[in-house]
Amino acid sequence: MGGTNRCILLRSRPDGMPSGENFELVEEGVPEPGEGELVVQTIYLSVDPYMRGRMTGVRTYISPFETGKVLTGGVVGKVVESRNPDFKEGEIVTGNLSWADYSLSDGKHLRKLDPESAPISTSLGIVGMPGLTAYFGLLDIGKPKPGETVVISGAAGAVGTVAGQIAKLYGCKVVGIAGSKEKTSYLKKELGFDAVINYQREEISKAVKLHAAEGVDIYFDNVGGPISDSVMRRINYKARIILCGQISQYNLKEPEKGPRVQGQLIQRSALMQGFIVSDYADRQEEGIKQLGQWVRDGKLKYRENMVEGLENAPQAFIGLFNGENLGKQLVKVSEE
Amino acid sequence: MGGTNRCILLRSRPDGMPSGENFELVEEGVPEPGEGELVVQTIYLSVDPYMRGRMTGVRTYISPFETGKVLTGGVVGKVVESRNPDFKEGEIVTGNLSWADYSLSDGKHLRKLDPESAPISTSLGIVGMPGLTAYFGLLDIGKPKPGETVVISGAAGAVGTVAGQIAKLYGCKVVGIAGSKEKTSYLKKELGFDAVINYQREEISKAVKLHAAEGVDIYFDNVGGPISDSVMRRINYKARIILCGQISQYNLKEPEKGPRVQGQLIQRSALMQGFIVSDYADRQEEGIKQLGQWVRDGKLKYRENMVEGLENAPQAFIGLFNGENLGKQLVKVSEE
Repeated sequence: MGGTNRCILLRSRPDGMPSGENFELVEEGVPEPGEGELVVQTIYLSVDPYMRGRMTGVRTYISPFETGKVLTGGVVGKVVESRNPDFKEGEIVTGNLSWADYSLSDGKHLRKLDPESAPISTSLGIVGMPGLTAYFGLLDIGKPKPGETVVISGAAGAVGTVAGQIAKLYGCKVVGIAGSKEKTSYLKKELGFDAVINYQREEISKAVKLHAAEGVDIYFDNVGGPISDSVMRRINYKARIILCGQISQYNLKEPEKGPRVQGQLIQRSALMQGFIVSDYADRQEEGIKQLGQWVRDGKLKYRENMVEGLENAPQAFIGLFNGENLGKQLVKVSEE
Repeated sequence: MGGTNRCILLRSRPDGMPSGENFELVEEGVPEPGEGELVVQTIYLSVDPYMRGRMTGVRTYISPFETGKVLTGGVVGKVVESRNPDFKEGEIVTGNLSWADYSLSDGKHLRKLDPESAPISTSLGIVGMPGLTAYFGLLDIGKPKPGETVVISGAAGAVGTVAGQIAKLYGCKVVGIAGSKEKTSYLKKELGFDAVINYQREEISKAVKLHAAEGVDIYFDNVGGPISDSVMRRINYKARIILCGQISQYNLKEPEKGPRVQGQLIQRSALMQGFIVSDYADRQEEGIKQLGQWVRDGKLKYRENMVEGLENAPQAFIGLFNGENLGKQLVKVSEE
């Protein structure tokens, strides 16, 4: 089909906080599909905190990004050319694709979306990876029971907003920790959190003691660091600590030491469990169905923070670490 | 019945490592049982690391010892006088009783022992609290599968020796960490551990990498601190870290900071769970039956480290923190 394809490469690995210099926008030709392949035009691009780990060059649960290569992430797009019998032009799909105007795909791991059933952008947020992360982490690890106290850090983010709302659906008392008045107001007034803590203005230890007066039964942790240290001091017998993210640690040049948690876990017979959403790959359908149903029933609300233009994807990504997003951070690359 | 009863009091709370000055031996009269009560003459007294926590004066899962009061712990003894219809003179019982020649009891929480079925001292060790701790921790939290690698710290202690042998019964590769040649030889030659690490002589990180070459699936942690830091760096996907004790931390005057474990747990989708044996109170009978059977079948071996004389109980207790015991540390107070 010809034309220009803008792509964003990882130019260099961030040392500490990522900056614009770690990224580079280059132009190349729009890819031509071979037999069995298709071309997807990016509509929305997702930026997610976990991507910081892939930029570090250390193999963890997922292979690192390579410098000089195009970044990849969650994309919703439209099939614009197809030589794969399973996909037709005009269909809307989601998958892990390039930070680019156009991606080449063999169709494996692409999922078709029905624009009638939900806004297609939600497949990158509340009915996508972040929503599923909240769903499986909270329910499978946290096992919330009515009346329990659930504390959520990074509560205004794409995962935290969903985790908190599901905890409310399960009859829990929900305390959200976030970093601005706008965020805490949203959590309390729009999402129905029982209490909120603004860690920029309040002394966390005191605030946790005040708002989780009966102690913490479940801690859904997106941030780690000193905020978590304060929450850990208030855990109850048989508490469950769901380790979802540690965003406070991702940009440290040297790993930070902290209070050892083991003694506290023994004293409270408590569980701390790390996970990533792909641990639940075989239950993805269940999660998507349930989340979609809750959204359609008005039981789960969501907000998207939309940045316009592929060229602004690096700044949108960096903004995740400055607490700029309320809800799911997306980049709009082309019109639906 | 009259006579003298020697008792050991907590004279003062240890500040750091306990010393003889924290204890005091006093003499009083042998207690007289009231209606429904009985008097037990101590035969064996158990000293256990968890007691250090009770000496600190901070309420955790168990109330602190009070200064000026007689210490209590696991005891095996003989009923020498009874005004309780459920107990006869001459019966052998075990329970949480005084650090004294004689204890008064209302019979609640006392368990009768059959001296024919097993040596009575084992009810304080392999078929008692430490054995049950190993049994429930390893099986319920660790869920060992054949071929998995299990690393055990404090491997030559009362809990570690049992945990390692059960892991072998479940078909695991077992690596034990202990602090002397005598201990590591015992683990390897007598208990059949696959590999041993002497942390006094070897660089732990290297040794763990060498002996747990396929990574660590289960870590049964009795010690915490730098030894655990090294093991944590080698955990596998979906590893289980069983937090049983943190003996390296119990005598620190200031809590020690360490590497934050949360990132590692997320990267490996790993679980870390604290527990104490009383979490499994409702399954105690099952555990005692199974452990007793394994001992009778020769599948579990055990060793006891016996100190003679009630007056030496404080030194036996202090010795736990110097790594003096191989197997279960007991104090023999009177003849069987």
